[in-house]
Amino acid sequence: MFKTNQYFDGTVVSIGLESNEGTATVGVMAAGEYEFGTDTVEIMTVVSGQLTIQQPGETEWKTYTKFESFEVAKGVKFKVKCEQDTPYLCLYK
Amino acid sequence: MFKTNQYFDGTVVSIGLESNEGTATVGVMAAGEYEFGTDTVEIMTVVSGQLTIQQPGETEWKTYTKFESFEVAKGVKFKVKCEQDTPYLCLYK
Repeated sequence: MFKTNQYFDGTVVSIGLESNEGTATVGVMAAGEYEFGTDTVEIMTVVSGQLTIQQPGETEWKTYTKFESFEVAKGVKFKVKCEQDTPYLCLYK
Repeated sequence: MFKTNQYFDGTVVSIGLESNEGTATVGVMAAGEYEFGTDTVEIMTVVSGQLTIQQPGETEWKTYTKFESFEVAKGVKFKVKCEQDTPYLCLYK
């Protein structure tokens, strides 16, 4: 029914779905630092806690908290840091 | 690392985590109607789309939309309806 994926030795787990906002995953990241690649434009929303993001080509990090979203361009890599289990929603545009 | 659970023949999937708000699951429900039981007080938050809820002992249904939350008492059963894949966060208090 729903497909679950694991990344980074299971420290990131996501479930694919078709939301009313389009194709999405809902998932969780354990504390750590990750680099993700994008195949589409992605809009990520923090569901609880916070994620700290480094956009491609930037040196600064920016923190997003519960219900805040950020957009990442298609075909790039971006970095994410979090300090504890952080649930998120990712929409693929 | 994270434990994933399936309910109702896989039409509800959740991932357990320890958020900054406490023990939680993040998951998704497919379109359908479900009855859940609670072992603790639960605070559910709609992450995208909407959930329609019947609280225990009530006849009316109430709809909650993106980022809205509702609380369910400990040790009861409540009903949930949704019309498409709906991601949610559940906090256990």
